[in-house]
Amino acid sequence: MRTISESKCFGGVQGVYAHASEATGTEMTFGLFLPEEAAAGPVPVLWFLSGLTCTHENAMVKAGAQKWAAEQGIAVVYPDTSPRGEGVADDAAWDLGQGAGFYLNATEAPWAKHYRMWDYIADELPALVTRNFAVDGERQAITGHSMGGHGALTLALSLPGRFRSVSAFAPICNPMKSDWGRKQFTAYLGPDEARWHAHDASVLMFARHFAGPVLIDTGTADEHAAKLGTPAMALAIAERRQPATLRLQPGYDHGYFFVSSFMEDHIAFHAEALWA
Amino acid sequence: MRTISESKCFGGVQGVYAHASEATGTEMTFGLFLPEEAAAGPVPVLWFLSGLTCTHENAMVKAGAQKWAAEQGIAVVYPDTSPRGEGVADDAAWDLGQGAGFYLNATEAPWAKHYRMWDYIADELPALVTRNFAVDGERQAITGHSMGGHGALTLALSLPGRFRSVSAFAPICNPMKSDWGRKQFTAYLGPDEARWHAHDASVLMFARHFAGPVLIDTGTADEHAAKLGTPAMALAIAERRQPATLRLQPGYDHGYFFVSSFMEDHIAFHAEALWA
Repeated sequence: MRTISESKCFGGVQGVYAHASEATGTEMTFGLFLPEEAAAGPVPVLWFLSGLTCTHENAMVKAGAQKWAAEQGIAVVYPDTSPRGEGVADDAAWDLGQGAGFYLNATEAPWAKHYRMWDYIADELPALVTRNFAVDGERQAITGHSMGGHGALTLALSLPGRFRSVSAFAPICNPMKSDWGRKQFTAYLGPDEARWHAHDASVLMFARHFAGPVLIDTGTADEHAAKLGTPAMALAIAERRQPATLRLQPGYDHGYFFVSSFMEDHIAFHAEALWA
Repeated sequence: MRTISESKCFGGVQGVYAHASEATGTEMTFGLFLPEEAAAGPVPVLWFLSGLTCTHENAMVKAGAQKWAAEQGIAVVYPDTSPRGEGVADDAAWDLGQGAGFYLNATEAPWAKHYRMWDYIADELPALVTRNFAVDGERQAITGHSMGGHGALTLALSLPGRFRSVSAFAPICNPMKSDWGRKQFTAYLGPDEARWHAHDASVLMFARHFAGPVLIDTGTADEHAAKLGTPAMALAIAERRQPATLRLQPGYDHGYFFVSSFMEDHIAFHAEALWA
């Protein structure tokens, strides 16, 4: 692992690191914010999974999480959204290929070779972060935006006991029924829809429940509303009586101004679970 | 109108009053909390509609709204849930007849004569309260519990411009599909289900939207969950992108301890809209 940069930030350190990934077979880059408290010992950690086209950098620069994470004494990890580089399959469309890994392990050519973001986020990166930094693997929470909200919800629902809380900003909730999902699942996982279920948060919520609190914010003016499938998640939460708060935030769109507007709420929500 | 009682309460006055109602053709009783600020001029008002079996008294005594209403300078009205008295039709079941008016105007015998709770709550009582007390008819909000949550949501959705905000505790959201609804609508409105639509909050939410914020809390341990139809409302809110917060509150049941636990939140929610 090599350090790309480390900068003091709200009393802590905002770092960017790169490492050779076994999961993806590429070099992967991630951001990590460590609050001041990490100098004294391991701190709880919040994963922030980003959306389509993003690298590790977008949320790190634009989501405004560090201020609140510093106040709460929580680390934040910002992973990349796909493998990258020459020799890594890509597509001319911005919603497939590099920057659009959808947090799954691809099984189909040409994607299967490097697109193993599920293994990377679920296993490899947590092990690397807890081994190298003052981050407490027993106190993890996860959030994300758009495609990253999809990732946060599917990981949280699929790894019982891993995350104490899960939240999402304008998540893709029902990708099996969405233009942000059907095309990508067909490419990465093949046409058998039965294999898609494990990566649809609404399907998982109906089937599995989450043993902690859930917070979802989506703007009423979200320009991608038809692709998010929020109604399917709303229905699943209510049907399963999942402890959850679902907020339709009046007038907000899909962008980072929406994310940053509610970041304080989300960090406080996770802090309550992480420090309990 | 006659005063039954007036008691100092959190610096204001908790009164109980009775009056001859034109709408129901009976004497009706209601509670009214006026905060200290009402001595200086009209204050905003929150309507609290109660659930099955309740009179004006249950929420007034058990919901704990006065403390928060006093802090926010807001009046609270506690109407009764049905006409009452000798000569008023009733049923041996506790969920039909007296104490179970469902906030509608009955059209069928023997209910049509007195069961006109819609007209009473929508027209007669607001006029009486704003005429006789320092209550500002331009700043109204509404909430309720269970059957009263049904009433709050259907009134708010049916009277555009009347209420600045609406909330509900464990509301009956989809009575057309519920044992708390089908039996009563058949009795009060007759078997033609097309006439029930106007009294089903989920149907109304799909059709009409609400031009203000919505807050709904329901406990995950609600023993009447199957009768509430929360999933239908969750779906309607998400489909219509209604500015709203829907919370499934872990471990809470259907009772007044649940209501009082979240009353501070609801009063603060309405205060923000009423004082805007």
